[in-house]
Amino acid sequence: MTTHEELHQWHELAQQLRVDSIRSTTIAGSGHPTSSMSPADLMAILLSKYLRYDFDHPGNPNNDRLIFSKGHAAPLLYSMYKAAGVISDEELRSLRHFGSRLEGHPTPALPWVDVATGSLGQGLAIGVGIALAGKYLDQLPYHTWVLLGDSEIAEGSIWEAFDHAAHYTLDNLIAIIDVNRLGQRGQTELGWNTQAYANRARAFGWQAIEIDGHNLTEIDQAYSAAITVNDHPTVIIARTIKGKGVTSLEDLGGWHGKALKPDAQTQAIAELGGERQMIIEVDKPEEQRQPASIGKAKALQLPTYNKGGKVATRRAYGDTLLALGAAQPNVIALDAEVSNSTYAEDFAEAYPERYFEMYIAEQQMVAAAVGLQVRKYKPFASTFAAFLTRAYDFIRMAAVSHANIKLVGSHAGVSIGQDGASQMALEDLAAFRAVWSSTVLYPSDANQTAKLVAQMSDRDGIVYLRTTRESTPVIYDPQEQFPIGGSKIIHSSHRDQATVIGAGITVHEAIKAYDRLKKEGITIRVIDAYSVKPIDVPTLHQAARDTKGNLVVVEDHWIEGGLGAAVLDSFAGTSNTPFYQGPQLRLIKLAVRDMPASGTPEELLHAAKIDADAIVEAVKSQVRQPVGV
Amino acid sequence: MTTHEELHQWHELAQQLRVDSIRSTTIAGSGHPTSSMSPADLMAILLSKYLRYDFDHPGNPNNDRLIFSKGHAAPLLYSMYKAAGVISDEELRSLRHFGSRLEGHPTPALPWVDVATGSLGQGLAIGVGIALAGKYLDQLPYHTWVLLGDSEIAEGSIWEAFDHAAHYTLDNLIAIIDVNRLGQRGQTELGWNTQAYANRARAFGWQAIEIDGHNLTEIDQAYSAAITVNDHPTVIIARTIKGKGVTSLEDLGGWHGKALKPDAQTQAIAELGGERQMIIEVDKPEEQRQPASIGKAKALQLPTYNKGGKVATRRAYGDTLLALGAAQPNVIALDAEVSNSTYAEDFAEAYPERYFEMYIAEQQMVAAAVGLQVRKYKPFASTFAAFLTRAYDFIRMAAVSHANIKLVGSHAGVSIGQDGASQMALEDLAAFRAVWSSTVLYPSDANQTAKLVAQMSDRDGIVYLRTTRESTPVIYDPQEQFPIGGSKIIHSSHRDQATVIGAGITVHEAIKAYDRLKKEGITIRVIDAYSVKPIDVPTLHQAARDTKGNLVVVEDHWIEGGLGAAVLDSFAGTSNTPFYQGPQLRLIKLAVRDMPASGTPEELLHAAKIDADAIVEAVKSQVRQPVGV
Repeated sequence: MTTHEELHQWHELAQQLRVDSIRSTTIAGSGHPTSSMSPADLMAILLSKYLRYDFDHPGNPNNDRLIFSKGHAAPLLYSMYKAAGVISDEELRSLRHFGSRLEGHPTPALPWVDVATGSLGQGLAIGVGIALAGKYLDQLPYHTWVLLGDSEIAEGSIWEAFDHAAHYTLDNLIAIIDVNRLGQRGQTELGWNTQAYANRARAFGWQAIEIDGHNLTEIDQAYSAAITVNDHPTVIIARTIKGKGVTSLEDLGGWHGKALKPDAQTQAIAELGGERQMIIEVDKPEEQRQPASIGKAKALQLPTYNKGGKVATRRAYGDTLLALGAAQPNVIALDAEVSNSTYAEDFAEAYPERYFEMYIAEQQMVAAAVGLQVRKYKPFASTFAAFLTRAYDFIRMAAVSHANIKLVGSHAGVSIGQDGASQMALEDLAAFRAVWSSTVLYPSDANQTAKLVAQMSDRDGIVYLRTTRESTPVIYDPQEQFPIGGSKIIHSSHRDQATVIGAGITVHEAIKAYDRLKKEGITIRVIDAYSVKPIDVPTLHQAARDTKGNLVVVEDHWIEGGLGAAVLDSFAGTSNTPFYQGPQLRLIKLAVRDMPASGTPEELLHAAKIDADAIVEAVKSQVRQPVGV
Repeated sequence: MTTHEELHQWHELAQQLRVDSIRSTTIAGSGHPTSSMSPADLMAILLSKYLRYDFDHPGNPNNDRLIFSKGHAAPLLYSMYKAAGVISDEELRSLRHFGSRLEGHPTPALPWVDVATGSLGQGLAIGVGIALAGKYLDQLPYHTWVLLGDSEIAEGSIWEAFDHAAHYTLDNLIAIIDVNRLGQRGQTELGWNTQAYANRARAFGWQAIEIDGHNLTEIDQAYSAAITVNDHPTVIIARTIKGKGVTSLEDLGGWHGKALKPDAQTQAIAELGGERQMIIEVDKPEEQRQPASIGKAKALQLPTYNKGGKVATRRAYGDTLLALGAAQPNVIALDAEVSNSTYAEDFAEAYPERYFEMYIAEQQMVAAAVGLQVRKYKPFASTFAAFLTRAYDFIRMAAVSHANIKLVGSHAGVSIGQDGASQMALEDLAAFRAVWSSTVLYPSDANQTAKLVAQMSDRDGIVYLRTTRESTPVIYDPQEQFPIGGSKIIHSSHRDQATVIGAGITVHEAIKAYDRLKKEGITIRVIDAYSVKPIDVPTLHQAARDTKGNLVVVEDHWIEGGLGAAVLDSFAGTSNTPFYQGPQLRLIKLAVRDMPASGTPEELLHAAKIDADAIVEAVKSQVRQPVGV
């Protein structure tokens, strides 16, 4: 039974959280006080009684996890940290200031924030990833709590999360929806119809509990029920009032994301009973166990392929993932229902306990990867490269989270052939290059793929590998090394008249072009730029100097933002480095310009003018044109 | 009552569709016969009795619409076209061949295909857009039928569509889920649990009908119920068997996306009763009405702004959208619950019948735009630019559909200030440039914005406009013209030592830098590159020639793929055009390199080194460095 004293303390804490949310936003001159006030009662009781968290050791594997999916309620989260005694009132007052850890939306600049939020609809899906780790990998009893706004329930990614959480029986995952009825610009789609939310959640296999989000006893009972249920995730659907506690703000439109002016602040704080400086003891986890052991690390035995054979790089990815699985027990694989195409299936068969089928839900797949890396696992997530575009916002936000995830896209480019444009990734290199902390790799052969996948495992940030559907010749010895940031010079002589730079499938076209041009007395340098980001600047500069500035870049990608752009970028300067010195750059970009259709890979490479024919033509046009000024 | 004769004819047609799906894929050597066989009965009855379609006039506004969201069942769709007498058996046999209109997944290369599919989970959301047009704009009684696979129901976008269809009471929308239990690599998440699908759909406000998808009478009754319901969309959840009709294929794994070998084909066709060449009469729509009139076209009166004032370009977007609304009755606006930030709200208030609130569901928003343009409307869809990344796969596919949509992203770049990185679009220019058929615009002032938005309305393809949160000086006269593909030279003289190229907010930093450098005796050219794609190549080449190759590009965007990349691209050649002739390019890219946090716009522009200080430093470093070889 809840005691009077408890109720009083919870109420006092909730009022403090409201006051602090108002104070910090008023000083900042911006932010979301009213969105922080509606779930204050919910968070006060969570912090006081249910959350198990060792604030001194955020990395303690037994800690519960708390994600503010409604990231704009950051002032509330920071006020909770103040109440827990881990940030000072002075720091609280630095909210939204340049240099402060207390950003407008939560980021891992704070050690207790695992993932950045602020793009709505992402927190629950990431919570699924953490809960998967907790239940199946760590095998520890911690809970993952996710606070959601009601507006964000309109995001499809929320329903991917509902679906997957139930499928994987994540009874360690608790969602709390703050149904304050008001979105940024007016009433939400469902308003205060908490029953509609509950019906949907139940249809998706969840335990759903409807409560008054300001009734402390109801909140207490709901949490108690949530942590005792088995085999079902729980959602608490709390009817709340935006701006709760301050009459002039309650349930009013026009107050989203607006700080109170100092006068209004004074009045509001008075109505809330004044400032408080309570510090509460947050319970540490009772369990002090280590995560379950899921195998021992062993030496990595990479697959090798015989030169002269033909192997698809996606096949080599699957083989190498399997090898990583054997060597590194913290490697986890995910796939979006195409594991027999990406070849993640071999890992899935060998290590089913470390494979999570994400079905056709790419947003959830990337979010789960982000959640898994919170618990220090190394997630490799694969699907057709074209379909990773579905998760681009999640990838963008993963970078804001400073997450370490590995993404693998197969079936890139027109060279997939008959399936047509919908299945062809032609924008993936551009999209991934424009992600902070990203590495972009694009191997041309199976041995190179193995070496690159091995390096992905230890590489921080968003690491992307693009693989090819078609079998391509094995051109490298298994002994060769392919460091990230490097490139491979396949052909080179002091008589080279031009340099052809390819990656992936176009490397093989460049090699064909080399042979043909050689017969006509034209020798070219051929560079395999398998590391698209970072790119090998010195080798490119040297090639430009050695070959009269004649560069031909050829890629199975739209003309914008891909390998050609990476090569061009390498010739741009900065305020602090000297410019490239050498002959005027005469660079031709061969890339896809027209919408492709179906056909054989050969027909489509030819039609797109990115095959050996097009390379030969481009080199000849360079050699023919006189060097200018 | 269904007659025996009808049942017989439907069965025969379904068998023909199966046989033709097998025949065409066997000739192609690839494709999805078994996924085409499971919904053959469903489609046979749709085509025979329920679809109202004038194949001679695909543009007839009274036509029903049919979308194969499970685009991989394209062989079935094409077999239906053959049965309708609009493609020949010879053309059917060209499936997946280079040059054929019958691509691996449907595209508008065929006049009866409105939108491309093949990225699963998109068809229903696009159907919502068409149904919105039908019910609220056209006000015509046609139906939109969407055939879905069961695997794709895992996509969150499906649930955005379920949600919005019910919210807008789209009783003219009928979804048919082909629950054949098997995805690409094995059993789907829900298998044959049609009740689970039905419960979810009902919780989202739909009429749900569970049937045996091979029972012709049940199918007939379900369609009949679907077209008579009021105020609810209907989903028919049909339990089917993958590969139905051929014992050696039925309900078997390992047969996804696999064509039969010729021997197996012969046997399969025999079991299906042999080849047939039935041609059926598809009913034309009974109604022959024109779409409702939604206002008369008037002369466009663009808003104007006084030079010297300060206006945010997002504000100018809102004003211009309102003006377009008054002048062009086919302009429709959509927003994802932030219309008071993007300023779409003024249009929403003035023309509520032409505004659709999409709540926080960006995928559905873009899909609805694609659906609206199918019916020849001009959709303008807006949200924070960062959140358009959520819909990147839909934008990619919109290009495959040759769709004409206008997307507007506000709050771009670090200059939004306090809200932090999650709200800052820093990859949007890169992402949109790498979309086929795209135009990318980024105005620096309010009058320029008005002129560009006016041009967007008539521009084909994916047209993207990036707006700025902060108020910025009005620097242009309302009379000035800003053609797409052009640029504006703000400062120019024959003594210019370098050229600074900016767009949007950085134009104002470039102007400040100009003033400061002038005081130090350095004159620079300043170019406002408001048209990022297509970019003004001649002006950039001329500037490079005039200013010793010294170019500084400054942008509020990651360093990859944005304005700097567009400028560099303009100096790349092709096999058919002469190279840029002029002094060696000495180009400095000033762009965002480190993850930004919160702060004032000024602090963040400075920290990112994209403000006037950074421009001054870059220009000085160019002027100081001796020109090389």
